[in-house]
Amino acid sequence: MSTRIVEVRAKVRKQNDLLAHALRRRFWDSGVSVVGLVSSPGSGKTAFLEKLLGGLARDFRVAALVGDLATENDAARLKRASPNVRQITTGTICHLDAQMIERALEGWQLNTLDFLFIENVGNLVCPSSYDLGEELRFVLLSATEGEDKPLKYPTIFNSSDVAIITKMDLAEVADFDLAAARRNIESVRPGMQIFEVSAKTGSGMQNVFQLLRDQLIHSRESCPAPQVEV
Amino acid sequence: MSTRIVEVRAKVRKQNDLLAHALRRRFWDSGVSVVGLVSSPGSGKTAFLEKLLGGLARDFRVAALVGDLATENDAARLKRASPNVRQITTGTICHLDAQMIERALEGWQLNTLDFLFIENVGNLVCPSSYDLGEELRFVLLSATEGEDKPLKYPTIFNSSDVAIITKMDLAEVADFDLAAARRNIESVRPGMQIFEVSAKTGSGMQNVFQLLRDQLIHSRESCPAPQVEV
Repeated sequence: MSTRIVEVRAKVRKQNDLLAHALRRRFWDSGVSVVGLVSSPGSGKTAFLEKLLGGLARDFRVAALVGDLATENDAARLKRASPNVRQITTGTICHLDAQMIERALEGWQLNTLDFLFIENVGNLVCPSSYDLGEELRFVLLSATEGEDKPLKYPTIFNSSDVAIITKMDLAEVADFDLAAARRNIESVRPGMQIFEVSAKTGSGMQNVFQLLRDQLIHSRESCPAPQVEV
Repeated sequence: MSTRIVEVRAKVRKQNDLLAHALRRRFWDSGVSVVGLVSSPGSGKTAFLEKLLGGLARDFRVAALVGDLATENDAARLKRASPNVRQITTGTICHLDAQMIERALEGWQLNTLDFLFIENVGNLVCPSSYDLGEELRFVLLSATEGEDKPLKYPTIFNSSDVAIITKMDLAEVADFDLAAARRNIESVRPGMQIFEVSAKTGSGMQNVFQLLRDQLIHSRESCPAPQVEV
């Protein structure tokens, strides 16, 4: 890559980081717990998010922003689980950025929410460089994608907090080697918490709900996010 | 995105296109048929390519370049099917470009080959903007990824020549709607040729072998690739 494009990109990322820090502070002040979702296309982010919104909506006030290059299909689908869903279409851009999040939030009263989920564009490369101000980032890996993805895309695992192995109902027919997948995640991100779920059967989802509930309590009891000078 | 980054990217792409045109001419002069493979991470590019190399190696001289951010695993795996395999590791870059291809070919006698396959980094966005000088580009979509990917990532389908639906052995358990997938491909790229395969069972692979044989005969009988002024 040319030196010039590297320099321009670094500048854009610095601006993004400043805005992401401001968003993180705003989320904290509003008492909303913000969780980002990243993964390959087709690894089941939307099905997983549908289950999350449906399961949490009984006890909490939930909302979601969903990113795609094109179509409003995901937002339409998720609105069945919660009315507070907005689509962000990025055109040809392979990731969301903090400015897109800020714009998409316009008019929403964040202090009326408990959880806000941000589903990124399906991509294992681009989203890793763009902080969106989330409190937690989940990286999803489906049982049908193969066990080697953490080794091939280490940065996205390193820039995430929790790994979710999805489509576990297909693990056996897809010859998925769960132990190898766990080993590969552990080798690129030692100590990373890993959940195994199936949005189709609902298996494992209770553990994720518990993590989110604990996170909400923890973040409301903790000190504000520090103001970072970038 | 800033105007500046758009301008810099346009310049980089123009340089890439010039180099890709030179590569295309060189491939034509050498009589080698070059096929690119693009898809999401985990949609089965390497398993498909392994079958292609294994099946074609009986009658043809074959080689492959494989792109990944990290690891040399794919090249090691493919070398079981053909000794002429080289890995390109891109670091944090989400696609191959023409310069990477030119460098990776150093020392290879292209006129001793019939087919050269180029497996791109697993990504449905970035590779669509970078011509690698291929004669044909295959876009792969696995039955476990969902039918909506052509609608969500139209550009990668528009910049490809042939669609390959992989993992057809899992179509039933994954509730894959083949008719919807075909309709979605047709809507973003009318008339696109579509193949359904399973690298695991080998089903549908004969049709792809036939396409490649026909392509080789056709390209050796046709006129040289035109010199395009970019």
